[in-house]
Amino acid sequence: MNHSKTLKVFSPFDQSLLKEIPMVGEKEVENALKLAYSLFLDRKKWIPPYKRIEILEKVQEIMKSKVEELTKTAAAEGGKPYMDSKVEVMRAINGVKIASEEIGRLTGEQIPMGLTQASVNRIAFTTREPIGVIASISAFNHPLNLIVHQTVTAFASGCPVIVKPASTTPLSCLAFLEILDEAGVPEGWVQSIITDNETAEKLVTDKRINYLSFIGSAKVGWYLKSKLAPGTRCALEHGGAAPVIVEPDAELEEMLPALVKGGFYHAGQVCVSVQKVFVHESIARQVAEKMAEMANKLVVGDPLDKKTEVGPLILPKEVDRVEEWVKEAKDKGAELLCGGKRISDTCYAPTVIWNAPQDIKVSKEEIFGPVVCIYPYQDRDQAIQQANALDYHFQAAVFTKNIDIAFDTVQKLNATAVMVNDHTAFRVDWMPFGGRDASGEGLGGIPYSMHEMTREKLMVVKSKWL
Amino acid sequence: MNHSKTLKVFSPFDQSLLKEIPMVGEKEVENALKLAYSLFLDRKKWIPPYKRIEILEKVQEIMKSKVEELTKTAAAEGGKPYMDSKVEVMRAINGVKIASEEIGRLTGEQIPMGLTQASVNRIAFTTREPIGVIASISAFNHPLNLIVHQTVTAFASGCPVIVKPASTTPLSCLAFLEILDEAGVPEGWVQSIITDNETAEKLVTDKRINYLSFIGSAKVGWYLKSKLAPGTRCALEHGGAAPVIVEPDAELEEMLPALVKGGFYHAGQVCVSVQKVFVHESIARQVAEKMAEMANKLVVGDPLDKKTEVGPLILPKEVDRVEEWVKEAKDKGAELLCGGKRISDTCYAPTVIWNAPQDIKVSKEEIFGPVVCIYPYQDRDQAIQQANALDYHFQAAVFTKNIDIAFDTVQKLNATAVMVNDHTAFRVDWMPFGGRDASGEGLGGIPYSMHEMTREKLMVVKSKWL
Amino acid sequence: MNHSKTLKVFSPFDQSLLKEIPMVGEKEVENALKLAYSLFLDRKKWIPPYKRIEILEKVQEIMKSKVEELTKTAAAEGGKPYMDSKVEVMRAINGVKIASEEIGRLTGEQIPMGLTQASVNRIAFTTREPIGVIASISAFNHPLNLIVHQTVTAFASGCPVIVKPASTTPLSCLAFLEILDEAGVPEGWVQSIITDNETAEKLVTDKRINYLSFIGSAKVGWYLKSKLAPGTRCALEHGGAAPVIVEPDAELEEMLPALVKGGFYHAGQVCVSVQKVFVHESIARQVAEKMAEMANKLVVGDPLDKKTEVGPLILPKEVDRVEEWVKEAKDKGAELLCGGKRISDTCYAPTVIWNAPQDIKVSKEEIFGPVVCIYPYQDRDQAIQQANALDYHFQAAVFTKNIDIAFDTVQKLNATAVMVNDHTAFRVDWMPFGGRDASGEGLGGIPYSMHEMTREKLMVVKSKWL
Amino acid sequence: MNHSKTLKVFSPFDQSLLKEIPMVGEKEVENALKLAYSLFLDRKKWIPPYKRIEILEKVQEIMKSKVEELTKTAAAEGGKPYMDSKVEVMRAINGVKIASEEIGRLTGEQIPMGLTQASVNRIAFTTREPIGVIASISAFNHPLNLIVHQTVTAFASGCPVIVKPASTTPLSCLAFLEILDEAGVPEGWVQSIITDNETAEKLVTDKRINYLSFIGSAKVGWYLKSKLAPGTRCALEHGGAAPVIVEPDAELEEMLPALVKGGFYHAGQVCVSVQKVFVHESIARQVAEKMAEMANKLVVGDPLDKKTEVGPLILPKEVDRVEEWVKEAKDKGAELLCGGKRISDTCYAPTVIWNAPQDIKVSKEEIFGPVVCIYPYQDRDQAIQQANALDYHFQAAVFTKNIDIAFDTVQKLNATAVMVNDHTAFRVDWMPFGGRDASGEGLGGIPYSMHEMTREKLMVVKSKWL
Repeated sequence: MNHSKTLKVFSPFDQSLLKEIPMVGEKEVENALKLAYSLFLDRKKWIPPYKRIEILEKVQEIMKSKVEELTKTAAAEGGKPYMDSKVEVMRAINGVKIASEEIGRLTGEQIPMGLTQASVNRIAFTTREPIGVIASISAFNHPLNLIVHQTVTAFASGCPVIVKPASTTPLSCLAFLEILDEAGVPEGWVQSIITDNETAEKLVTDKRINYLSFIGSAKVGWYLKSKLAPGTRCALEHGGAAPVIVEPDAELEEMLPALVKGGFYHAGQVCVSVQKVFVHESIARQVAEKMAEMANKLVVGDPLDKKTEVGPLILPKEVDRVEEWVKEAKDKGAELLCGGKRISDTCYAPTVIWNAPQDIKVSKEEIFGPVVCIYPYQDRDQAIQQANALDYHFQAAVFTKNIDIAFDTVQKLNATAVMVNDHTAFRVDWMPFGGRDASGEGLGGIPYSMHEMTREKLMVVKSKWL
Repeated sequence: MNHSKTLKVFSPFDQSLLKEIPMVGEKEVENALKLAYSLFLDRKKWIPPYKRIEILEKVQEIMKSKVEELTKTAAAEGGKPYMDSKVEVMRAINGVKIASEEIGRLTGEQIPMGLTQASVNRIAFTTREPIGVIASISAFNHPLNLIVHQTVTAFASGCPVIVKPASTTPLSCLAFLEILDEAGVPEGWVQSIITDNETAEKLVTDKRINYLSFIGSAKVGWYLKSKLAPGTRCALEHGGAAPVIVEPDAELEEMLPALVKGGFYHAGQVCVSVQKVFVHESIARQVAEKMAEMANKLVVGDPLDKKTEVGPLILPKEVDRVEEWVKEAKDKGAELLCGGKRISDTCYAPTVIWNAPQDIKVSKEEIFGPVVCIYPYQDRDQAIQQANALDYHFQAAVFTKNIDIAFDTVQKLNATAVMVNDHTAFRVDWMPFGGRDASGEGLGGIPYSMHEMTREKLMVVKSKWL
Repeated sequence: MNHSKTLKVFSPFDQSLLKEIPMVGEKEVENALKLAYSLFLDRKKWIPPYKRIEILEKVQEIMKSKVEELTKTAAAEGGKPYMDSKVEVMRAINGVKIASEEIGRLTGEQIPMGLTQASVNRIAFTTREPIGVIASISAFNHPLNLIVHQTVTAFASGCPVIVKPASTTPLSCLAFLEILDEAGVPEGWVQSIITDNETAEKLVTDKRINYLSFIGSAKVGWYLKSKLAPGTRCALEHGGAAPVIVEPDAELEEMLPALVKGGFYHAGQVCVSVQKVFVHESIARQVAEKMAEMANKLVVGDPLDKKTEVGPLILPKEVDRVEEWVKEAKDKGAELLCGGKRISDTCYAPTVIWNAPQDIKVSKEEIFGPVVCIYPYQDRDQAIQQANALDYHFQAAVFTKNIDIAFDTVQKLNATAVMVNDHTAFRVDWMPFGGRDASGEGLGGIPYSMHEMTREKLMVVKSKWL
Repeated sequence: MNHSKTLKVFSPFDQSLLKEIPMVGEKEVENALKLAYSLFLDRKKWIPPYKRIEILEKVQEIMKSKVEELTKTAAAEGGKPYMDSKVEVMRAINGVKIASEEIGRLTGEQIPMGLTQASVNRIAFTTREPIGVIASISAFNHPLNLIVHQTVTAFASGCPVIVKPASTTPLSCLAFLEILDEAGVPEGWVQSIITDNETAEKLVTDKRINYLSFIGSAKVGWYLKSKLAPGTRCALEHGGAAPVIVEPDAELEEMLPALVKGGFYHAGQVCVSVQKVFVHESIARQVAEKMAEMANKLVVGDPLDKKTEVGPLILPKEVDRVEEWVKEAKDKGAELLCGGKRISDTCYAPTVIWNAPQDIKVSKEEIFGPVVCIYPYQDRDQAIQQANALDYHFQAAVFTKNIDIAFDTVQKLNATAVMVNDHTAFRVDWMPFGGRDASGEGLGGIPYSMHEMTREKLMVVKSKWL
């Protein structure tokens, strides 16, 4: 590979060039891997827990002093509006804290012995050990926070990590790695690589990689998984088409702002964005029209403007794609209650679609754009069946005040998390988070990732006196 | 003490003499304690887990072959109707199984080290050890199941136990100890003493007793606790006056049978019997009248008759007491919607009281008889405040279909357990169970008792290579 | 596929035909899958926990009445000596009990809310749900117990399962499925298929399979994993070349019988058999010679004879393979201290090899035969490095009385379990068990399998009153 | 009581007056209790978790800015040498962090339902709630850190707390409460009272107190426990006479400094100070003489001097008491290997006693002074029996390199914690810590205290659809 290659990072809003970064080739990636692997093999180089805690506390401190800077970098390269980007930065700081606290919870437990005659005279305990070298492939939609999720977890767990940021949003990653460096993370524990996909695949499928953390499209994720070396574990976080069930007794004043936020936050470019809202027919049209009214009022525009509520899509071609999908919906008889058009080359208007057929793209695929579909239903069980019908199952929601219906719907929806009277995109970084079935593998959420990045070792001591 | 003293066990229903049992004095109790203590001190005599499991599986097997016999003994001495006594026997068998399974869960965990520089080079784990010799003082209302709760837990935990059954219902206890013997429990691990209260107090307050399990009146329980030797832990299970909140949206067809069962099961002689039902005024009178109608139809009589639904109180003087309390209620302006009278020297009619003042006995003390009070309310928070107003806090309930109200009421009721759309006396033997505040100390429920009957030992190994 | 095809099951000892079983083709497998999938999709057909427990208790009861029969079937088809096969049957019964008990532990936990301002007014809990339809591919070396591990766990977890037994040992599986049937497992929950590998692969890679449980060779396992449908999880249990470190202070009288058992049990056909014993040079030759002496005395022969200690290998071609590997060792300069030859077409003599080079098959690959290699070492850390050098990491052991050395070696050995002063093949069915790195994926051990066969669902309730 | 009463705080080293503080009487205490109780009763005043976390992070920040000041205050009033007092301050800051982190772990769990037919159609979860108003009675030996343990835990758990510091060391407490105030703890949540014992007893035994945290003498602790109102729980942390077993294979270079530190740290005024060292006769005299040699070199003197290793006892009368006990030892035939005399009115020389009889004070009571006893033994089991013989059982230790002996001794020593190859006074603030038997009740260690300061509430939801 030609080392003179560079990666150009553009503003997703106005397509201006933000920065040009040198890309690395196979040789540099091999060096990074060699270094990481040598750190893992040599226990004397391992960083003791108290030291990792000290460093991560320092990281938080530095981040707190750079909130404004980090916010602007993330907003500029990723297109998420300033106010939401700031929330992301605060969450990222909190994420470092969660990881630091979790270090003390990476503990084992006693395994009972003597429950059968064959197992007397023994005592047994487990401990948790770092799993090995980790490769992280990250996504663009939370350019700072996902990097925290995919590197700080590894470092906190005692694993060297090599991260490849999304090629559209590498700047937040690089800024964060500088902070890690400043905070005292020793060389080689957290390395980033800016490289092409082919080289990244070589890294990921190398035998010395013991764990792959991947956030991105299902297609790429499942492909990479099938190529991993024997023994490499992985966490895949893909998307979904998050469904919501709305019962006639839902409290609309609470629900509508939640659904609008859940559907149009970051222009819908979140893996758990509200996409398919099944509403009981008695109130469906009312809900749809009110949502359209609210969606229509959202301020779309420059992510660096503090008033902006919805920014651009990450790439112009995504606007094309969304446009095409919405057109298909219209052509197939769905009604557009608002939006349904591009605002510029990079921005698409928040769109509410009424009663799209179940077999077209907006109903079957993850939109990853500012589009919400409303479907009226007569029978709750049928609505749930439709909600479950895709291969993707991630987060879901139900709005009802009835306790029986709430529990029943939570039980029946195929999802890793079901919100009762809240939108599907609710997340805190310490909760379990991850797609089911085709939506992903392994569990995210910082403590859960750290659990997966470590593995149990059982010690059984035999002694005549036990 | 005169060894020729005996305990006469009478039928609570017809006062016939069921059996006369020799009582023991201080000397025998001291011998029992000495034996138990010597077993605890000598680790070589400890019974390994797999052996305890084998024995407890044998116990279940024998019990299963004696269901009819155990049912009749319990019903005859305790007065609980045959069908309910049979349920008790089945639960007792299940209880032995729960205890046997819990043996494998008496495990410790790793305590992290190295989180500070001062704690590096160490590894630490806890294990659980039997607490020592246990004294159990039991109650009459579940003459078999409580004995299981207070002896099998101890044996399963590795603790020698000395149990004093209720003086009204010792026969089930003695029958059970014979089963333990037949199943192979070695001598001294589970001993029973039939003795007077004074001698029992001497046992309980002896320094060699490391744990007291007491089920009975709050007065005796708290007294005994204040007399324990330094270092003796205890579990006290007293009673309460279980409150229920009924919202206007409660589903009555489900609720009414539950409340009737919860209020009149075993003639209300259960520490978590439904006693104080606060009903929203919009439906309060209707609820009260329907409950009275149903209570009126309950078959009261001979506990050995399979059709009997409500049996006698444990002692004739308890009938006198209940009579007096209900009379006070009537005198103070409460309305009796059914019952309100004795049926015989030993049986009292199921009684529903409307709107008794809050400052009289039926509202302030535990009735422990077949009496349920209904209070209409306007404001839910005020009803909750009244429900919480006594010193006793055990189990409680709320009937509503609204999820917000359900969670809010569960939060606000001062109780160890709150049932949503079920009566207060719901219990399974593996759930945590125990009174709060004046209602008791420590946690019952078989796994929880076993947790309390064992204690953690921490082992910290220091080594330069850790 | 031709439905008239059959599977012939031969005695591994004398090659006599034990039974001929009809094989099924794609159509029958599709029907089995359809049935299993329909059970999973229809929650009304799910079997409540108490019913699963009842059935599994019945299963244990029937098994206890058939110990002799099950022992002979397993010994006859699998070749494991009678006494060891009997132990397997008893373990299998215990395994059903463990699974039954674990049903009550498939529980969730509260996830805290309100730790940030953005998460107030919420309460969150997880529960565990069955993962879906499970396909199990089993191995020959524990023809009954592995089937229990791969079917009862699924049934207990609430998952329909389709199992393919090893083609050499299907009889124990079929006998067990008859027992399940007799005990009341409803149709379709546990189905077996006797089919060819191609058809089995089609089943395993079908999208409707949500979990693959595979026990067998690493080559097949990792291949199947790479072919799974997106969203299908798996547990792979392959083998290893279990290493042992022996320090100069090891207590030989305890160690030698343990190593002989761990190395020659079931003719070494166990994935955690003692294979590579690194002994400090000061005692290495003594250890090697004593082991050879003991190995030499092992009774090799007919598995149905109660005196037999080592039976045949599963197939004559395995004897050929072992013969070849040992020959290579000899050719490359290793010394044979005992054995080193075939006894018959089906049996190979227990063999102890002194100081084989590290780069030949007996040192680099899993032998899966009655061969143990002894290597003298000077430096413990170097020995550990050699022990860790293969891609396979499963169970390991260290013999020393020194507490520092014990903990240090446990830390450094790359293994899921390290025994201190016991052989590598120690296992109880409730402990975590599974290979690391190339040795497998996921965790076995009955409770751990059930954990993997269920998945968490998070419910987050939002309410203004929380 | 006369409000004009004051408490004079003297330097334990030179008896100079450090400060005079006004004492409060019953009325003020009643007001404090009323305020605390009203906060607990009114859920609207409860402080949400994220707010408690914010405040406690601010507390750490302020403390970090006042390390020097807090160190000097603690050293001046408590007499612990400057360097050790500084360690105490750092630990106190860490303790606030531990408590803050633990807030997110005060969570409940699912209780399984449906394991019996009687419990189907239900789902059950526990949550943890603050226990109520807490009274804390503190001790002098860690004037800052114990206050953190007894107030921050309560605040973090959501409980209002009233603390009475030791009358000898109230200044660190008052300084800490100012910090809490500055950090934003709302009024009434953490209150201190400087009062006499009689008034304190009235507070502690008041029915509105739901939990007593007591650190101090066993005599006072057990007395107070017997006086508590029904329903008041307690944690009592008393002392012991920590035993150590030293086997012939102990590594002396590691052990001797540990024993000297564990025996003479804070002049032995720690509840887990090394007091009784049982050494195998083959090395006992050597160990004793070396310890004496090292003890002799310890720098005794002014706690504010950074070179001081051992400071004064807390009160001159304690010097008298220690003098008397040592005299008794000498009179009864024990040999003094060093020390054995007072250095001044307030300081006692570090003392090593050889072979004191088991029935005199230095062997039977907690010394709480700079005195260590060495006893030679022949038989380890007999030494363990002597180590266990007192009623007090807290922390213990064993020095051996043999893994069998280590586990055996850990098993047999009656103690909450046994250190292997470390002294008995090892403690980190997140580990379980607390006396057994007469040494105390309940568990200390910050997370454990918070567990005890909260209680479980079980919610059982019944629904036909579950």
